Amino acid sequence: MARLVMKFGGTSVADIERIRNVARHVKREVDAGHEVAVVVSAMSGKTNELVAWCREASPMHDAREYDAVVASGEQVTSGLLAIVLQGMGITARSWQGWQLPLYTDGTHASARIKGLNGDELIKRFKERNEVAVIAGFQGINQETGRISTLGRGGSDTSAVAVDRCDIYTDVDGVYTTDPRIVPKAQRLEAVAFEEMLEMASLGAKVLQVRSVELAMTQKVRLFVRSSFDAPDAPQVDNKGRPPGTLICDEEEIVENQIVTGIAFSKDEAQIALREVADKPGVAAAIFGPLAEAHINVDMIVQNVSADGKKTDITFTVPVAEFGKAKATIEKARGQIGFASMEGYSDVVKVSVIGVGMRSHAGVASTAFRALAEKGINIRVISTSEIKISILIDAAYTELAVRTLHSVYGLDG
Amino acid sequence: MARLVMKFGGTSVADIERIRNVARHVKREVDAGHEVAVVVSAMSGKTNELVAWCREASPMHDAREYDAVVASGEQVTSGLLAIVLQGMGITARSWQGWQLPLYTDGTHASARIKGLNGDELIKRFKERNEVAVIAGFQGINQETGRISTLGRGGSDTSAVAVDRCDIYTDVDGVYTTDPRIVPKAQRLEAVAFEEMLEMASLGAKVLQVRSVELAMTQKVRLFVRSSFDAPDAPQVDNKGRPPGTLICDEEEIVENQIVTGIAFSKDEAQIALREVADKPGVAAAIFGPLAEAHINVDMIVQNVSADGKKTDITFTVPVAEFGKAKATIEKARGQIGFASMEGYSDVVKVSVIGVGMRSHAGVASTAFRALAEKGINIRVISTSEIKISILIDAAYTELAVRTLHSVYGLDG
Repeated sequence: MARLVMKFGGTSVADIERIRNVARHVKREVDAGHEVAVVVSAMSGKTNELVAWCREASPMHDAREYDAVVASGEQVTSGLLAIVLQGMGITARSWQGWQLPLYTDGTHASARIKGLNGDELIKRFKERNEVAVIAGFQGINQETGRISTLGRGGSDTSAVAVDRCDIYTDVDGVYTTDPRIVPKAQRLEAVAFEEMLEMASLGAKVLQVRSVELAMTQKVRLFVRSSFDAPDAPQVDNKGRPPGTLICDEEEIVENQIVTGIAFSKDEAQIALREVADKPGVAAAIFGPLAEAHINVDMIVQNVSADGKKTDITFTVPVAEFGKAKATIEKARGQIGFASMEGYSDVVKVSVIGVGMRSHAGVASTAFRALAEKGINIRVISTSEIKISILIDAAYTELAVRTLHSVYGLDG
Repeated sequence: MARLVMKFGGTSVADIERIRNVARHVKREVDAGHEVAVVVSAMSGKTNELVAWCREASPMHDAREYDAVVASGEQVTSGLLAIVLQGMGITARSWQGWQLPLYTDGTHASARIKGLNGDELIKRFKERNEVAVIAGFQGINQETGRISTLGRGGSDTSAVAVDRCDIYTDVDGVYTTDPRIVPKAQRLEAVAFEEMLEMASLGAKVLQVRSVELAMTQKVRLFVRSSFDAPDAPQVDNKGRPPGTLICDEEEIVENQIVTGIAFSKDEAQIALREVADKPGVAAAIFGPLAEAHINVDMIVQNVSADGKKTDITFTVPVAEFGKAKATIEKARGQIGFASMEGYSDVVKVSVIGVGMRSHAGVASTAFRALAEKGINIRVISTSEIKISILIDAAYTELAVRTLHSVYGLDG
């Protein structure tokens, strides 16, 4: 017997028929003797509708009232799933964020969890074998007692002490890369938390970065799988593997690949400053104003200057902040001092990810060589212990991803 | 300065544009210096959608989960109205039933109010001039902490100590009768609580019976008006009268009419039992089983028997209970003893209402004579201090209502 959290996203609960299918997945785990908490999102489309109403009501709306409006979406799903479960003879009860309570800080619309009291849920697991159906994505501001939400997609309730957290989504796991681009992409049996963090932050939409962070710190294994699987089918796929991807500690993964996956992000724009003075304080003059303007700078490259006097500095920002970033730099031109500024938004960041890189040399040079052979120009490079990111022209996205997927032996 | 509750129904908040219009009505009262609490229903259609989902989830659903689902409708409107008010520069905050808190008993889906703590609202009126936007129709079960709802249409929050309660609806007041049947129907300037209770229970959809009861016991005057009026127009109509109907204590009404209005209800079915033994215990044998079956019996007429041995008993039940009522009686036939049972569902109850009847004789005979002159057969009569109800064939509804409206001098 395990204590289990099952999370279902918006497409998994889009209508009553799908909620019924979700209930069958829950029943399977209950029948297996587990203590089950289910976390549900709003029916797909509902949150967008509610957000649109808030915007129509006022473009600059109070985040506290936005939260009261938007949290209603998950409230509806939690009640409906409890009704369906009860109809199947399963003891179940819905829980809103304020009922648990799940306390958050006061950052309305993107609140952080401060604490969760799961005592009542655990008592009901034991005494009544009751399934807890938790409205995801919401909590209560500990200071004010107002409804808070955890930001879009943030059904972050793994904070309960659980043994396993199953995340049901509309895909059947995490892949070596986007299968729409590389048909040979393989579903991964297991991914390390750190790898998943890099993948999530690069736009793999399966999981939120914060869900993964929380699971990692709480040491809760995540299992990503599809809610559209037949609930009563054998819990292995046609190759005898579990029907999804496990996200867990690095040590748990027996067959460590050097490279686990190839991710890419189109949400990048590049800014290059030419002939910047190569002296202390210049970096602060550039990145200080950007930080003050809440612009998130990602890759930064500063060339070693030939003459010790002038250098070029290149960095990337989110596409949505591109115009604002250029204006901010232009405004600080006096403090920085540069000959010219160049900007490119038609770029893409391709990343090679794998915890195995830590113990293997030459991983990066393999990528550079493979891209060069295909005639793909590298604009910017940045590396971390488990990731190599390369900025290239967007036109080469598919070619680069396929090339790297192949060169690291990920094609099935 | 007065403390004021303004209630807005579903059609008044059906979309953001209408919510904006509601906000303008609120602004007018705030600008006049009043302390304002606004009670809102769900956007029209939303509650029906939520109820339909509950039914689809399970025909026999848990009322506690139904409440969690359905209460979300008002939650959305309260947040949206708060956003719009803030956008107009008015300090405003939304309040859910559990936040106030408005405590109810455990009769989920049709809970009764046990108490309301308005201290925080009153503090905020005083300190911040803050408008309270209250999600109507919902509270919190005092015992269990679960969300409860007050039953369809029951935005019963007049329980706050207030001076006046304005009810904004899609009609501009209470009329002497249904204007769709009698074009000469007049809007009433004032109606006594008792009269309104009779009208509401007879299906005049302007107000819920329980809202009126609560207002009567709390001695809060209700003012019924249209939310579609221009919010900034002069607060009198083109005859110099306030733009709605005041519901208040009988004593407050200066010009007392004998008859205030003609109501009618199509929700009636008649059952007649022939040749029932005229002896003690027979009424109990009939109405006991009906009460046990939760069938609400309205009019009851027992003829004086000619011979002291056999009599006829006639009564009415709601149309929806007609089949069940006949089956219940048939089942109890042994205990009751009767020659035959007759049932009619194609009947209507027409009622003449007015507190002035108390001090005037001959009101009933005027009605009987007027109907007889038009050849309308009276099936059943029942009277109270302020009401005469007459059951007739449904085909004569319009003729009877128009005749009575005219004979009591209500035509404009």
